[in-house]
Amino acid sequence: MKILALDSSGLVASVAIMEDDTLTAEYTIQYKKTHSQTLLPMLDEIGKMIELDLNTIDAIAVAAGPGSFTGLRIGSATAKGLGLALKKPLIAVPTIEGLAYNMYGSSQLICPIMDARRGQVYTGVFEFLETREEHMFGTISYEFQTIISRCAVTMDEMILRLNELGRSVAFVGDGIPVFADKIKEDLKVPYLLAPAHRNRQSAASVAMLAQIYYRQGKIQTAQEHQPEYLRLSQAERERIEQQKQQC
Amino acid sequence: MKILALDSSGLVASVAIMEDDTLTAEYTIQYKKTHSQTLLPMLDEIGKMIELDLNTIDAIAVAAGPGSFTGLRIGSATAKGLGLALKKPLIAVPTIEGLAYNMYGSSQLICPIMDARRGQVYTGVFEFLETREEHMFGTISYEFQTIISRCAVTMDEMILRLNELGRSVAFVGDGIPVFADKIKEDLKVPYLLAPAHRNRQSAASVAMLAQIYYRQGKIQTAQEHQPEYLRLSQAERERIEQQKQQC
Repeated sequence: MKILALDSSGLVASVAIMEDDTLTAEYTIQYKKTHSQTLLPMLDEIGKMIELDLNTIDAIAVAAGPGSFTGLRIGSATAKGLGLALKKPLIAVPTIEGLAYNMYGSSQLICPIMDARRGQVYTGVFEFLETREEHMFGTISYEFQTIISRCAVTMDEMILRLNELGRSVAFVGDGIPVFADKIKEDLKVPYLLAPAHRNRQSAASVAMLAQIYYRQGKIQTAQEHQPEYLRLSQAERERIEQQKQQC
Repeated sequence: MKILALDSSGLVASVAIMEDDTLTAEYTIQYKKTHSQTLLPMLDEIGKMIELDLNTIDAIAVAAGPGSFTGLRIGSATAKGLGLALKKPLIAVPTIEGLAYNMYGSSQLICPIMDARRGQVYTGVFEFLETREEHMFGTISYEFQTIISRCAVTMDEMILRLNELGRSVAFVGDGIPVFADKIKEDLKVPYLLAPAHRNRQSAASVAMLAQIYYRQGKIQTAQEHQPEYLRLSQAERERIEQQKQQC
């Protein structure tokens, strides 16, 4: 199974090609350029480098939100365009779950935190539960479990929930620099901040999860697909406010 | 601290720029092209994408071996050339340790296995020991410990050593597909095979370790640097054989 994966849900732009157990290519940048300047040129570049025939891919995975509204639209529009042109299915990978997959095999709870502005984070809590295929000997694998589903809440509320859970936690995502002081002050459980090679979005993690979703039949047509914002956009909020005032 | 990292020790070619907690760029491919066709063009590509001024980097990290002799020579030659031209120090990151860093935070022992041909693997055993800065609350960090230093041995011998250690182990590297059957048959401890987004060389892992080495003062001049092959090359072995026969 060959998957093209895209993530432009935050500042990071990331493109990967994964074929079964092989990460054929990954190209990721974290730089102040708009994703319309980066995402397709990056795909084009790796396409040339690995002599990729886009017709050979089985599905297009995209980090489907939450995240930057503009970033999500660029990612989803790119995936939809490619899906329509190539007649390939799409796999929508929630950004929060994708970020959690950066910490594959971690023994802590995993709490992705994406800065959602206005004091909020896009977040959730997950766990890699170790399972063994045979008793004692045999291969270890992980069951990826959701403890708290993805949501938009204040960091205060998330810290409260984590303190209630009472277990060690690993944070990942661009909320870390924003909320590091608050975490240090208010969190009452041991915690890890993801290191530099794991702390932001990666299309390889999106592709990894997409393989699992694909096997589970969680695919969409390009027409069906739309990003999951988790919150109203600023324009929508302002219109609702205006309508309230007019009543 | 801004680090340029290169890894061409195996089939993978990988280039990364890491600045403190930020992975500014990573470009990795696993494709049957020689590294002389990929490594510098990839650096050139990310340089343009992130408007990189090479004079702003503090050091050049390179996966310094073991690995493919030709790959190591291309990686080291590239790093030496850049180091000489830019007057920047080099950081030699052992390939085996770099691969182990893919499994950052793993609770298993980590055993990188690189196919060294002739029945051997380049390997070693490492561990991420959890430490906490303050008791109970406070941040978790990991101490990266060497259990068995990097070496070239047969896979049989490595499995024997792992069975003696008696703990769960995570394998990473291109030795996995070559020795998966042998592992399944002979290993008597639970084991994990690294997933696709973690199972091969990554310049981001090299950069992550290079940051630590840099702080410890483990740097070299471009003149000093040379790859660490761990074994004699085929040409050297054959010359020694010939000399023996001539005596």
